[in-house]
Amino acid sequence: MTSENKPEMRSYDAVRDSFTNGSDSPRAFMDRCIADVERLDDSVKAFVITNQRAAREAADASSERWQAGAPISRIDGMPVGVKDIMETADMPTAQGSPLFTGWQGGRDCAAVAALRDAGAIMLGKTVTTEFAATHPGSTRNPWDLERTPGGSSSGSAASVATGMVSAALGSQVIGSTIRPASYCGAFGYKPSLGGINRGGSFDGFSQSCTGIIAASLAECWVVTREITSRTGGDAGYVGVIGPMEPPASMVPGRVALLHTAGWENLSESVKAELQRSIAVIEEAGVDVQDRASNAVIEEVEEAIADAMQLSMSINAWEGRWPLDTYNRDMDSSLLSGTAHDRLKQAQAMSQDEFAELLAEREKIRAIYAKLGEEFDASMTLSAPGAAPKGLGWTGDPIFTVPTSLVGMPTVSLPVLQDDGLPLGLQVMGFTNRDAHLFAVAQGVLDIL
Amino acid sequence: MTSENKPEMRSYDAVRDSFTNGSDSPRAFMDRCIADVERLDDSVKAFVITNQRAAREAADASSERWQAGAPISRIDGMPVGVKDIMETADMPTAQGSPLFTGWQGGRDCAAVAALRDAGAIMLGKTVTTEFAATHPGSTRNPWDLERTPGGSSSGSAASVATGMVSAALGSQVIGSTIRPASYCGAFGYKPSLGGINRGGSFDGFSQSCTGIIAASLAECWVVTREITSRTGGDAGYVGVIGPMEPPASMVPGRVALLHTAGWENLSESVKAELQRSIAVIEEAGVDVQDRASNAVIEEVEEAIADAMQLSMSINAWEGRWPLDTYNRDMDSSLLSGTAHDRLKQAQAMSQDEFAELLAEREKIRAIYAKLGEEFDASMTLSAPGAAPKGLGWTGDPIFTVPTSLVGMPTVSLPVLQDDGLPLGLQVMGFTNRDAHLFAVAQGVLDIL
Repeated sequence: MTSENKPEMRSYDAVRDSFTNGSDSPRAFMDRCIADVERLDDSVKAFVITNQRAAREAADASSERWQAGAPISRIDGMPVGVKDIMETADMPTAQGSPLFTGWQGGRDCAAVAALRDAGAIMLGKTVTTEFAATHPGSTRNPWDLERTPGGSSSGSAASVATGMVSAALGSQVIGSTIRPASYCGAFGYKPSLGGINRGGSFDGFSQSCTGIIAASLAECWVVTREITSRTGGDAGYVGVIGPMEPPASMVPGRVALLHTAGWENLSESVKAELQRSIAVIEEAGVDVQDRASNAVIEEVEEAIADAMQLSMSINAWEGRWPLDTYNRDMDSSLLSGTAHDRLKQAQAMSQDEFAELLAEREKIRAIYAKLGEEFDASMTLSAPGAAPKGLGWTGDPIFTVPTSLVGMPTVSLPVLQDDGLPLGLQVMGFTNRDAHLFAVAQGVLDIL
Repeated sequence: MTSENKPEMRSYDAVRDSFTNGSDSPRAFMDRCIADVERLDDSVKAFVITNQRAAREAADASSERWQAGAPISRIDGMPVGVKDIMETADMPTAQGSPLFTGWQGGRDCAAVAALRDAGAIMLGKTVTTEFAATHPGSTRNPWDLERTPGGSSSGSAASVATGMVSAALGSQVIGSTIRPASYCGAFGYKPSLGGINRGGSFDGFSQSCTGIIAASLAECWVVTREITSRTGGDAGYVGVIGPMEPPASMVPGRVALLHTAGWENLSESVKAELQRSIAVIEEAGVDVQDRASNAVIEEVEEAIADAMQLSMSINAWEGRWPLDTYNRDMDSSLLSGTAHDRLKQAQAMSQDEFAELLAEREKIRAIYAKLGEEFDASMTLSAPGAAPKGLGWTGDPIFTVPTSLVGMPTVSLPVLQDDGLPLGLQVMGFTNRDAHLFAVAQGVLDIL
């Protein structure tokens, strides 16, 4: 791909009206997606595997339902990519690890089962880093094949950014949905803690969430609600609730601008790019505060300063299993060096240390929650800049770790640029107020 | 087995001193266990599969460590049974369902991985009801082969009761550890919510816990701590903490006698049996209160009156997945009738209804927690009586559902009798005070 041939997203929501009048169809839509897979994926490598024959058959059935005026849901027939840590009945789940090449559990994970109930179509499994951690997979950034797509939901972001699917399932424990969405120029959404049922996803961390990457903010919402209305959140969590339709746009009254620990290392041009957007938002009448003007923001910035270290330590202990059994009972030479390092870190930790880490996280969550009393949302960057060059590193998640740590919902809007490449503006909400976040984020989008 | 040939448990803890002086060895202990498997399991059917060769080899290695005075832990060499919903690297995991016969994920679940790290030996996989729900497996009660062993941890209880292993992993979402322990005459322990890491166990309900069935109360504790000190609780939970050694016996000052919803249907003889124990406990100086004498107990009894209905509804929604994908993507004719019923119930529910159920559970948890401010522990029966006759029903969990609903720790002590068969006395503690529960339960045991 060249700069003259920029990747383009393919919104299902934008064309679905034409399915009913017959000027377009889910089958034709699917054929266009598959044509892009054929055209682009040899170089982008977003997919581990696709099931094109089944996808076309399902699209035919969906076409009939739309033509009969009886689609199952708003996303009936939508081509979806599934991060390859999530079980699918018709495709293997390799977790980005050679230990699991071809592994097949024979069932759908909860989110995929719900999507199929809604009529959506799983076109393929998208590349993930090893076990959704840091060791990169094969995907390249569709805007510049020499750059990382971000991780760990690398293939999910790249497949959406190129229009090979309209939406994809991802996950985020530190920055694995928002950051690749930012690097690839797609919309990304990480819900409130427990927001989307993780049953059947190899994703057991306490601050991890299933997330959505999609061609529009509306589709992030609609896909989520079609899942959660059928299968809820993680066990013991209600899951994301709210209207089935995208929440109506709402201009926020008051927004907190968070600099976070990543601010100091930003380039001047990225700071200026963000500042231009903030200025436009302020001109629209939004009251934007930051740590210089508001004491609560200052307190929160201090509380989240070490979010990365704390998250990494919590993940290390919680990731001891299954790495210990992979190391002992499988071919440990097929584990990456970083996986071995994490296992060693975990083995050196104690349960008492973990108890202290959890207590620290709870304290930070309580402080962060104070923002919700004063502000409609917070904002920051989705990443420190455009996707870095090279494929050996998935980039810095410094701007995404705070909401992951505190378990709050967040979206990335692909409205900024750096170096001629996409950069996301992150709009962050408050626990279990995901619908409000979408209303406000749409408001910000409309302003910009 | 006849009444002249009563099942006998085989404590590892009671003989481990002789491993060091060489008068006994883990290998000889294992051989005795395996001999009992050979002698008894054709009729008891506690095991789905055993791995005797690997168990003997591991026992030899353990014997060497003990003789060298360097066991890895107090349970180095202990023969353990593993409920067949939990993954084991060397044995299949069939979940009590013909859909999963021979299914093998290639890894250990978190609890098994930790047990192996502690030197314990997985002798085999124990029979579970289908998906740890209600449809019975093949196990028979070792005290009377015409009676149920209880469920869902049927094989775990029967294997411990017969001395085929010293301890076994079970699980409980309503009554699946405490009730079979009661029916089979073993010690049972369900920890505080999240108490033992469930990673790699096909057990996704929000009020479910991995539990321990063992030949002694001490072994319930020691096995738990050897697991949790290595792998903690569920993700986001510290897991059971406290001393590595069994907590010292402590006579409780004040105990709440809970009648619960099961009381009305008890036989007079069972009521008298419980009353005799209560009288002995009171004679030892313990202040035993009940709903007639204490307002908080009365409030709690009212709050938990519908615990069964509420638990079943929560489980139904949370169990929609994976039943929906098993029903659609596998051979649905191999699902039991009760599994089909639960799926239908779930499909008729909405996310909003589930939200109400969770809110109701939270309310009850808060009320129940008040007991912890006034009492050292609560007590009730572990079951309404001896194991019922017949193998088509695993018995009534009415006495175990309250602690499951509220997520509090509980143990079953095999100190009562009904109809010449075992019946458990249940001693129930308070969230994250599991060590205190064990101290008090040992105190009660010492009194009786």
